[in-house]
Amino acid sequence: MGAAEETHDEAGTGAPARVRLRFAPSDLDVKVPGGVTVFDAASWNGIAIDSTCGGHGTCKKCRVRITAGEVPVSKLDSRAFTPDELRDGWRLACRITAQADLDVDVPPLVTRPKAATVGVGRQVILRPSVVKRHLQLEEPTLSDQRTDVQRVMDAMDDLEVRAGIDVLRTLGKVLRDAKWDVTAVVADDELIAVEAGDTTARRFAIAFDLGTTTVVANLLDLDTGTPVAVRSMLNKQQPFGADVISRISATMMDPDALGKLRELAHETLAELTDEVVAAGDVAPEEVYEVVLAGNATMTQIALGIDPEPLGVAPFVMTSDGYDGLRATDLGVRVHPNAPATVFPSLGAYVGGDITAGILASGLDRDRRLRLFIDVGTNCEIAVGNQDRIVSTAAPAGPAFEAASIQCGMRAAPGAIEIVTITDTDVELGVIDDAEPVGMCGSGLVDAVAELVRVGLLDASGKLITDEEAADRPEALRRRLVTVDDQRAFVLHWAGEPGDTDQAVYLSQRDVRELQFAKAAIATGWALLLEELEIDPSEVQQVLLAGSFGSYLSAASAIRIGLVPKLPIPRIISAGNVAGEGAKMAVLSRQERHAGRALIDEIEYVELSDRTDFNDRFVEQLAFPP
Amino acid sequence: MGAAEETHDEAGTGAPARVRLRFAPSDLDVKVPGGVTVFDAASWNGIAIDSTCGGHGTCKKCRVRITAGEVPVSKLDSRAFTPDELRDGWRLACRITAQADLDVDVPPLVTRPKAATVGVGRQVILRPSVVKRHLQLEEPTLSDQRTDVQRVMDAMDDLEVRAGIDVLRTLGKVLRDAKWDVTAVVADDELIAVEAGDTTARRFAIAFDLGTTTVVANLLDLDTGTPVAVRSMLNKQQPFGADVISRISATMMDPDALGKLRELAHETLAELTDEVVAAGDVAPEEVYEVVLAGNATMTQIALGIDPEPLGVAPFVMTSDGYDGLRATDLGVRVHPNAPATVFPSLGAYVGGDITAGILASGLDRDRRLRLFIDVGTNCEIAVGNQDRIVSTAAPAGPAFEAASIQCGMRAAPGAIEIVTITDTDVELGVIDDAEPVGMCGSGLVDAVAELVRVGLLDASGKLITDEEAADRPEALRRRLVTVDDQRAFVLHWAGEPGDTDQAVYLSQRDVRELQFAKAAIATGWALLLEELEIDPSEVQQVLLAGSFGSYLSAASAIRIGLVPKLPIPRIISAGNVAGEGAKMAVLSRQERHAGRALIDEIEYVELSDRTDFNDRFVEQLAFPP
Repeated sequence: MGAAEETHDEAGTGAPARVRLRFAPSDLDVKVPGGVTVFDAASWNGIAIDSTCGGHGTCKKCRVRITAGEVPVSKLDSRAFTPDELRDGWRLACRITAQADLDVDVPPLVTRPKAATVGVGRQVILRPSVVKRHLQLEEPTLSDQRTDVQRVMDAMDDLEVRAGIDVLRTLGKVLRDAKWDVTAVVADDELIAVEAGDTTARRFAIAFDLGTTTVVANLLDLDTGTPVAVRSMLNKQQPFGADVISRISATMMDPDALGKLRELAHETLAELTDEVVAAGDVAPEEVYEVVLAGNATMTQIALGIDPEPLGVAPFVMTSDGYDGLRATDLGVRVHPNAPATVFPSLGAYVGGDITAGILASGLDRDRRLRLFIDVGTNCEIAVGNQDRIVSTAAPAGPAFEAASIQCGMRAAPGAIEIVTITDTDVELGVIDDAEPVGMCGSGLVDAVAELVRVGLLDASGKLITDEEAADRPEALRRRLVTVDDQRAFVLHWAGEPGDTDQAVYLSQRDVRELQFAKAAIATGWALLLEELEIDPSEVQQVLLAGSFGSYLSAASAIRIGLVPKLPIPRIISAGNVAGEGAKMAVLSRQERHAGRALIDEIEYVELSDRTDFNDRFVEQLAFPP
Repeated sequence: MGAAEETHDEAGTGAPARVRLRFAPSDLDVKVPGGVTVFDAASWNGIAIDSTCGGHGTCKKCRVRITAGEVPVSKLDSRAFTPDELRDGWRLACRITAQADLDVDVPPLVTRPKAATVGVGRQVILRPSVVKRHLQLEEPTLSDQRTDVQRVMDAMDDLEVRAGIDVLRTLGKVLRDAKWDVTAVVADDELIAVEAGDTTARRFAIAFDLGTTTVVANLLDLDTGTPVAVRSMLNKQQPFGADVISRISATMMDPDALGKLRELAHETLAELTDEVVAAGDVAPEEVYEVVLAGNATMTQIALGIDPEPLGVAPFVMTSDGYDGLRATDLGVRVHPNAPATVFPSLGAYVGGDITAGILASGLDRDRRLRLFIDVGTNCEIAVGNQDRIVSTAAPAGPAFEAASIQCGMRAAPGAIEIVTITDTDVELGVIDDAEPVGMCGSGLVDAVAELVRVGLLDASGKLITDEEAADRPEALRRRLVTVDDQRAFVLHWAGEPGDTDQAVYLSQRDVRELQFAKAAIATGWALLLEELEIDPSEVQQVLLAGSFGSYLSAASAIRIGLVPKLPIPRIISAGNVAGEGAKMAVLSRQERHAGRALIDEIEYVELSDRTDFNDRFVEQLAFPP
């Protein structure tokens, strides 16, 4: 995306909200935000495509064949392929931005990569903390009575390792049954297993993104750095409320709730584990490490730590990081001695998911000044570059998840996700092309942005009166109605036109909800930019992270003032950066340490005690001119 | 004992085998080997006597009053007490060697000791690894959002500590419920607990001696260094056999046996824990650490580690030490985060109990050349001084535990423990003055030694013939009998004199058993002394360790050649040195590290591959002239 030319295209939406990609031969069918590269989309969905440059268009190894759908030939494609190949649909995956549904044929890997591409075009040199060594040991004799564990360690004298009681319990039997031909498994500085024979080719780990709503598991092959399987499911804690505050409240009301919530988190992680190992044809005991990225509340609950102080001022975490954890502490049934790494949190509301996301986006290593926004009920914002990064949390409320919106719904089939107002009427994009039954967050943002664009909503956020609408086309005028004593704009007449009972509409109150939400976020980045003494126009890239951010229309986000007014190509969907950061930590000790170091490098700015916050918030309520 | 004058007293036994000491006001009634100091006897039995010099007669603080029994006035007593006080029975406890039954009145502690006396007169500066800090923390604010754990650590910035997940789980609630007035409990470099209010005065630990036969628990007050309670019981593993080999064999026969044996070890330790905390009026949660000394087999089994390789050549341990253990790994229910330290082993047959014993005896810090012998089925031997120590194990077999002796029994009421042959007949000392029903190990040694002394047993170990005995007194002659076709000497006619069916006797085969046992041990120390190029006469002290060693008559031990022929005062009972070493490790991190360092400092000599072993063994079978 970085190489795409910056064109000022404020009117269009740049790319469709979702496109469908079908990958062969894995036969995986996925929907991804329009505009992401096929290379990234494949990586996010656990499909390995050859690459040594990390998606920057220099290695020309990410060759794929488009078997259905139109893809233009880029300059690099012309250099990488013969005219015949180009005619046959061959393209470089990192150069294809998904603008329409495509069928993509992925050749098998030809090189064993020394590096993997994850995150926002981040290339990670493969150096997992889990290392295997095949050892052919000499049998002990009366003149060589070294202890069993010493014998193993002496055979790996370039590694400084220690051994816990769990591996020692069976060591003697394993060594003797295997006739001293074994494979040692080391994670960081700990000997976690000794296995009979040579098992060096089998070495896996799981990266988890533990979201409040959705939980994702990525099974990775540590020997090759390639993804093996990825699965996601709703967090089983949902019955305790949709957001972190309701889950914290539950623990404050009921002394048993923390235990139950912890158990539900463990069940979610355990089921996902079962699914990815089954999908990847991997034994659970071959998974030697797990890494988890989650917000501070999800992390504390999963570890069984009382989250109450996160929920009340002054919003204090028990700890920013956790050492010495095992996968079993997260309820995950993999190798019983597998360590667990949990991404550290910057603050009660800028959690480990954001640390992982910032790691995945490379915010701290890029010269460009970039703005990272994870849009959600709690919106996390970070801005900066390799010199300095500041971050904060903005309490956006549930508007973007459409929970407090009268006709709001989750991004599920039947949800309006795209709204376009034409000269004469309204056109809708609905998930799965189903009959519209409500609108999700991106539909809400689109609807408001379009109403502002065509002037049916004024800059203050007020739907115009019938008098003011008198010169508008009939179809649009009829959509301006009054429901329950308040002004509303109907997006879809489910029954007869004019019958508001079954209609999907946007109410004046909904608009206000969105204004409050986007003002909180805009105040957040505006204050952070001030802290850095930078004008919003100087921001070189805006990364919209998280599942909602990925499906947001860049043009609409600009129109309502959710992001600074910038050329549309500077606004990009970053995908599930938390999960990508977790993958990076699995694949590389260095990246993991870099993730830990972010805690000290990033300055956390608390907004709730800023005296100018409310003034700035009021300024941001209006829609930009 | 070190200050006792060395007199050559080969005929007498020096002191009675056991004396009874009754301590007031604790009302504790104990039996100890004759000749130990009252100071040591009190320490071994969990009674605190004031001292700052460690029992060396320099501080004059160990004042006690003898209320029954005769004790001579030492030179130091004359300086420490007025004539009136001396008449009233006041003495220095470290100067009283227990030669007869005594009642001892112990004054309450007046000084809070900075040091404790444990082991063989070892003084230990109190520096336990468990430290408590009372902290009055500032409440967090929006401008001070440090994490809870950081706030605690910042308040102890002279300590480098880390916190595990277990303490973090409840930290937030504890801090807030206690209104930020708490006590942090640190063990080594780990924060193991945070408690409400100021609990600094309550800090305890348990030192365990996990013997194959007997298990001992010592509850210690870490704030004062004083013993609080001590209890012992038989190891519940007894049904699986009396010695380590039979327990190892059990695990080889039955795949479930290791789990069962481990469980029995844990039950033994847990019951002892319950007993000492109840006796000491201490809550289990106030016990923050446990230290365990045991032989390699007992240690491996207690930790659930397959002991099979210990039982077959080349006799290899899984590990010499174990890091990162918790008390829960030993099945002990104290503070749930309490760490456990297990004494490291020198070899499969020179275990952690011996490491602890050597630590307690100060073998490695003394200029004197000393010989340490822990007599048992497996006999461990170490010899050396501060310059060099060599050690080995000698397979003595079960003779000393009297298990393979025809009329043998454990040292329990009714066991003959002292045998004296007078000019006319035999005099016996029996445990609890009961009717004799058998003989224990010390009785066996005494019997053989006395028979050798009076010439009823020749130097080759053969009981003399009736012809050879013709000139002996009638009573003695009648005791030389034939039972089941072998020669025997009757110690006690239970029924009519002449009725061998119910008699307690020593058979020719018993003598052979003892000869084999003592020859194995004597070969062991003889080869070690050769290794050091030292003549046996140069040994300045022999420490007889373990429960059996403590009750052995020094004169008899010399007579049969179990120890080198030395002046009797050089042979001393060292008591339960394994338990004392464990106590030292509880009271002092420095001593614990010194214990760990012994593993590298002491040279282990494997005897089973020495080609000259059998020759030397045969030489040692005979009794010394």
